[in-house]
Amino acid sequence: MKIARTIEEFRALRRELPGPVGLFPTLGALHEGHLALIERARGENASVVTSLFVNPTQFGPNEDFSLYPRDEERDCRLFREAGVNLVFVPSLEEMYPAGFDVTVRVGGVTERLEGERRPGHFDGVATIVAKIFTVTQPDRAYFGEKDGQQLLVIRKLVRDLNLPVEIVACPTVRDPDGLALSSRNAYLSPEEREQALSLSRGLRLATKAFADGERGADALRRIARREIEAQSLSDIDYVALADAETLAEVEGEVTRPALLLVAVRFGKTRLIDNARLTVD
Amino acid sequence: MKIARTIEEFRALRRELPGPVGLFPTLGALHEGHLALIERARGENASVVTSLFVNPTQFGPNEDFSLYPRDEERDCRLFREAGVNLVFVPSLEEMYPAGFDVTVRVGGVTERLEGERRPGHFDGVATIVAKIFTVTQPDRAYFGEKDGQQLLVIRKLVRDLNLPVEIVACPTVRDPDGLALSSRNAYLSPEEREQALSLSRGLRLATKAFADGERGADALRRIARREIEAQSLSDIDYVALADAETLAEVEGEVTRPALLLVAVRFGKTRLIDNARLTVD
Repeated sequence: MKIARTIEEFRALRRELPGPVGLFPTLGALHEGHLALIERARGENASVVTSLFVNPTQFGPNEDFSLYPRDEERDCRLFREAGVNLVFVPSLEEMYPAGFDVTVRVGGVTERLEGERRPGHFDGVATIVAKIFTVTQPDRAYFGEKDGQQLLVIRKLVRDLNLPVEIVACPTVRDPDGLALSSRNAYLSPEEREQALSLSRGLRLATKAFADGERGADALRRIARREIEAQSLSDIDYVALADAETLAEVEGEVTRPALLLVAVRFGKTRLIDNARLTVD
Repeated sequence: MKIARTIEEFRALRRELPGPVGLFPTLGALHEGHLALIERARGENASVVTSLFVNPTQFGPNEDFSLYPRDEERDCRLFREAGVNLVFVPSLEEMYPAGFDVTVRVGGVTERLEGERRPGHFDGVATIVAKIFTVTQPDRAYFGEKDGQQLLVIRKLVRDLNLPVEIVACPTVRDPDGLALSSRNAYLSPEEREQALSLSRGLRLATKAFADGERGADALRRIARREIEAQSLSDIDYVALADAETLAEVEGEVTRPALLLVAVRFGKTRLIDNARLTVD
């Protein structure tokens, strides 16, 4: 496995890789969920590249940019063990040189939920993803379904800028008890972690009700919300049931593919999770 | 010469072209200035591709989008005669499908002059240029120096998004009497055209004064302005002397490379021109 720290270095090494090339961009702090995506990328491509960059522009001023867990040595060891061929580990200055001033803005699907609560977050995501795509030139790029809204933003970015890359969505990886894997789970106390299981439980109950025929958006939101609200430490940010393509909130009945999305705080830690409801 | 009307068609034909590939993106209404750029691109690349697309998003609501001269047959004949290998002529729907909602925004150099007077213009330019680059994947792209601010915007776009393309700036082509070639010159009455020569004359006088040692920004602006103001039909929008990199207005003395930029209305026609002042 090779490590490139500059764009120039990366491009030179990238040229030598046999294609197709699969990319998995990360902020580091790797967990089993990340490794599952790399595993999948390996199965579908001749070469796998990853990026390791904690992108400041997608963090809000009151978010955890400076606290975000960083352990390059461990992450690179895990990349190597997972069979990654080439890692891009740029410095801040390499990605944002003095005078940097371009923003890629995706409209529509960015306006609600995470976009509304984290102003600038998706501008930061769309801009860095566009840059990493132009640097790494992958044939396919892998993203987890856990960040459901982000996945929609990236699909829109690729479609509307005509980027020559196929976006592959990968199912959320969960602990055996249901908790969606996230680098931020490390912040949870044992009690918070126990109560955080209500997210996946609430989503599962609503998905089950949907499978059993419940189509009322209000009723489905209520099922998930009730489960999470019952936890003494939970502070619900949103429980949304939105169109799976436009992210518009569903009123009345679910008649098209939809996403049930939740964001909940436990103490200082904010967790998100989602489930897809597909009408047959 | 082949003509592609969809992105898919273009990409298939593009793959067969020997590299390096030079791109010249146009709005059509070709004149000798365009042909000079194509000539240069031919000399420097194995293949030349052009695009022909009147991009609505770079025109303001009160600008001449619907009136902009369109003659695809003539433009394609001129492309063919000039030795172009492949032309991209997309429909509006191909570039902006239903639900399109991504904007590439360049900051800094877009804020003054054309950017200030034409809100949204450079967002439209940066977005369409990014899209055309991702579709056409050129090794080099050619732009005229006549649109001096646009050239800075595109250089910034390429640098900050890490687009793998070399931007080649081409000197402004002028009629023998000095008028910078522009598709909009066709709108000028004979009297307006005569008076419009004051733009290049004013720039030339200021450049001459600069070469003779004048370094005062006010004095240099005044020399150009006086020449244009003397015309009965001229309506000056701006006469600016700005840093050639940041476009910040120069106060006091010119000590770094600068651009003298003018925008002037004659009747309904707005013309721009510029000259570079280079400190030895």
